[in-house]
Amino acid sequence: MRDDEGSLYCPDLPNAGILRCAQNDMARGISTPARGDGWAMKKLGILLSGRGSNFEAIARNALEGKIPARIAVVISNREEARGLALAREMGFETRVIPSQGRDREAYDREMVAVLKGFQVDLVCLAGFMRILSPGFIREFPRRILNIHPALLPSFPGLDAQKKALDYGVKLTGCTVHIVDEGVDTGPIVCQAAVAVRDDDTEETLAARILAEEHRIYSEAIRLLLEDRIEVVGRRAVLRK
Amino acid sequence: MRDDEGSLYCPDLPNAGILRCAQNDMARGISTPARGDGWAMKKLGILLSGRGSNFEAIARNALEGKIPARIAVVISNREEARGLALAREMGFETRVIPSQGRDREAYDREMVAVLKGFQVDLVCLAGFMRILSPGFIREFPRRILNIHPALLPSFPGLDAQKKALDYGVKLTGCTVHIVDEGVDTGPIVCQAAVAVRDDDTEETLAARILAEEHRIYSEAIRLLLEDRIEVVGRRAVLRK
Repeated sequence: MRDDEGSLYCPDLPNAGILRCAQNDMARGISTPARGDGWAMKKLGILLSGRGSNFEAIARNALEGKIPARIAVVISNREEARGLALAREMGFETRVIPSQGRDREAYDREMVAVLKGFQVDLVCLAGFMRILSPGFIREFPRRILNIHPALLPSFPGLDAQKKALDYGVKLTGCTVHIVDEGVDTGPIVCQAAVAVRDDDTEETLAARILAEEHRIYSEAIRLLLEDRIEVVGRRAVLRK
Repeated sequence: MRDDEGSLYCPDLPNAGILRCAQNDMARGISTPARGDGWAMKKLGILLSGRGSNFEAIARNALEGKIPARIAVVISNREEARGLALAREMGFETRVIPSQGRDREAYDREMVAVLKGFQVDLVCLAGFMRILSPGFIREFPRRILNIHPALLPSFPGLDAQKKALDYGVKLTGCTVHIVDEGVDTGPIVCQAAVAVRDDDTEETLAARILAEEHRIYSEAIRLLLEDRIEVVGRRAVLRK
């Protein structure tokens, strides 16, 4: 790293990422009030389908007081999701709502009912492998976050890491965005960059991106819950 | 910045970029032999249409021995290009080949003749506002570089900085790529990231990206000239 330019990384650093959020107090080490000291704790609803590593990172940060919220419920569409087992181990409320063969609108209405029942303030998609219906999105206006393993608008949709490798980009990363009715198109709250190495496989690249995902997802949640973000045009910026 | 994570920048750093090239010895401070000490100096042909700030950065790095090459000729399609005046002031060979109203193939043949006359090893587009014909590209196979002010494949084409602002990305940057027959589609040699600030205008963002352009363009030129890059699929990787 050359400090005189303030910004140069050698590509062989394990985690050559930069973070850019609408704001990142957390990154600057400004402390967050611990749970129970007078903050009204906001409630998160987590939707997952797989291993739930982003859920785990969010849960840890919430427990450590880095996010002013608690996880109210974890919903999975797959009984066998590892993230679901983990949520149960950690003592969270969980619901399995099997999606196979079900009408999307009806399915989403059931999810909405569960989330409203738990009075969640923010819905976090953490590897939830279904597209949400417009009806679902309308129930939580600008209150649904998703994370995507690429620097959107590059490489939307499935297999973003493989797409990045195949394209030959030297930088990729991850993006936390507010969910709208498109696929990976909503206003961006945070992004972090990750360097691609010549010898990367899909797996090694995905692992380094995941480390950044765990970091920026909690940061974005915090900004949303503290009502710090406003959307101007399609930009998510800090409220003045 | 938190060093424990190796990678976190505060967004208010003036130049929160990371560089990722196929290799960046230059970044690590490995010295390059000075001109005249036995290296066969490669020859660059520069094409420009405007102020030529990337040309200027390349020229400075070549003069300082950071690129193992000299600029053989600077071609502009516009007599009034500031970069052309600068090239004359710096004592480089220059040619003006006006493009207005001319057939692209004939125009490109004329440029090829000039570049071949100067025996250039590498053609560098530095704000050259014309699309090259397939005939031109065939004359310099994998020997034409371009720089684009975005993290391709995001925001190809004109007004990349404005597109990035309008889209609301938190990270953008620049890309040096080998020119193929598409617009901003060729194999990527280097990329650098730049953080977007909430209060950025097109001008302030463009200025910070430009600083990174100046840095990575020379790095990419060096890699090409030293024959360190091979293209596998559409990935430009370090030759083993």
